[in-house]
Amino acid sequence: MQPIVGRGVAEVLDYGDPNFKKGDLVWGMTGWEEYSLITATRPLFKIEHTDVPLSYNLGILGTPGLTAYVGFYEIFSPKKGEYVFISAASGAVGQFVGQFAKLLGCYVVGSAGTKEKVDLLKNKFGFDEAFNYKEEKDLDAALKRYFPNGIDIYFENVGGEMLDAVLVNMRLRGRISVCGLISQYNLDKHEGVHNLSCLITKRIRMEGFLVLDYYHLYPKFLDTVLSYLKEGKVSYVVDIAEGLESAPAALIGLFSGRNVGKQLVAVAHE
Amino acid sequence: MQPIVGRGVAEVLDYGDPNFKKGDLVWGMTGWEEYSLITATRPLFKIEHTDVPLSYNLGILGTPGLTAYVGFYEIFSPKKGEYVFISAASGAVGQFVGQFAKLLGCYVVGSAGTKEKVDLLKNKFGFDEAFNYKEEKDLDAALKRYFPNGIDIYFENVGGEMLDAVLVNMRLRGRISVCGLISQYNLDKHEGVHNLSCLITKRIRMEGFLVLDYYHLYPKFLDTVLSYLKEGKVSYVVDIAEGLESAPAALIGLFSGRNVGKQLVAVAHE
Repeated sequence: MQPIVGRGVAEVLDYGDPNFKKGDLVWGMTGWEEYSLITATRPLFKIEHTDVPLSYNLGILGTPGLTAYVGFYEIFSPKKGEYVFISAASGAVGQFVGQFAKLLGCYVVGSAGTKEKVDLLKNKFGFDEAFNYKEEKDLDAALKRYFPNGIDIYFENVGGEMLDAVLVNMRLRGRISVCGLISQYNLDKHEGVHNLSCLITKRIRMEGFLVLDYYHLYPKFLDTVLSYLKEGKVSYVVDIAEGLESAPAALIGLFSGRNVGKQLVAVAHE
Repeated sequence: MQPIVGRGVAEVLDYGDPNFKKGDLVWGMTGWEEYSLITATRPLFKIEHTDVPLSYNLGILGTPGLTAYVGFYEIFSPKKGEYVFISAASGAVGQFVGQFAKLLGCYVVGSAGTKEKVDLLKNKFGFDEAFNYKEEKDLDAALKRYFPNGIDIYFENVGGEMLDAVLVNMRLRGRISVCGLISQYNLDKHEGVHNLSCLITKRIRMEGFLVLDYYHLYPKFLDTVLSYLKEGKVSYVVDIAEGLESAPAALIGLFSGRNVGKQLVAVAHE
């Protein structure tokens, strides 16, 4: 039987690939298990920097961080002063997109689903504003409140009615990078999006991406973000579930937003 | 009372702008009327080439031609051999997109709403294939029949369920240029589009555009298309309604696809 796969940090115990040796620390696709046999060693990244917690390699220095970096810098070509909106903003990816946008000098607003997450966005991650979408009867009105001049850049993590509300609030030549549609994945049929005519009237570019196309940017990304970390310019929040047996509940919790920040499962401790 | 405006060909009778003189022929925004007072002379294009019918300036040499040129070459960066699908393909814009794509060496399929239009696509405009979407119970199955390997480029003129069917048939890194959503404009609420998650899994770029942003390309476009016309490389079909009084019915006919090719209204003859 194949194990469920997922991204993990692991220590090399034995190896058939000359690029690795016993004791190396790596991150990449491993199994939901205590010991993994990894046959595809690309992409499997050796961890060279041990002055940050190992768990960072699954978040800010790993796939979520690289996803945020690619989705913001590569897809958007963002400029200082632009108006940026991020949904699911306290999540594994959104928290970094917002921080990258603030570092560039953008105006940044995020949405999330609890008061705790909204506080985190404003007080820990330095977003200009944040709101709880569950408390807004009218998402269009909420966006107009925070973006009276409209949105230049939307980092899409949720889909559905949020996307419809965003489309009517985009500015001319706005850009939407589609990273995820978490609100839709568990529906039998995805909700319809009704306002695509805004793509024409506002000349909007909308682009989906997957981080696995951008692993070649990893060294550049790592240099940038390690220096941000050392200078205290970015913060990072993880939600660690203890023990392999807690993994299924942690996974299911993602779809109702139970996690705060990147969801990890601690199988063993350093 | 303001007249209804629309694009027309006109002869200058009197002028206050030194760029024009009596007897000049022009095309641009005029009124639904026999004599127009034009106060905004940009964009108003002087007609220099009189070896083609004047009506061509409202079609292949005018906005529809430029729209096709921009939507195909500028938005898509198309390559020889790519798989191209065009909806409302016999319309004012679609017929040129298909012919440009064939000239580049693409495989081109169009959809239209009558047998007459399908024949036109295959026999006059040189599309590889064409189908009547009204005779297809399952648009997804129709697209799979014509694109067993998927679609690289979709020129979107209609929206709604056609877009949903296209999304699941796009290839990796496909591009969709959104030119119009004719099936939606008369609905109180636009139909929902459900398959946007394909944007992520297939890394699709979808971009809306308006031709008015691209008038600076007009001279280059005109050179290209005039030489195509002289070499007999492109065909052009217009649907001319006689007399100003036929204009309202001609406009309404667009939404049910009654026109075959670019709809014009002849107010006066050359």
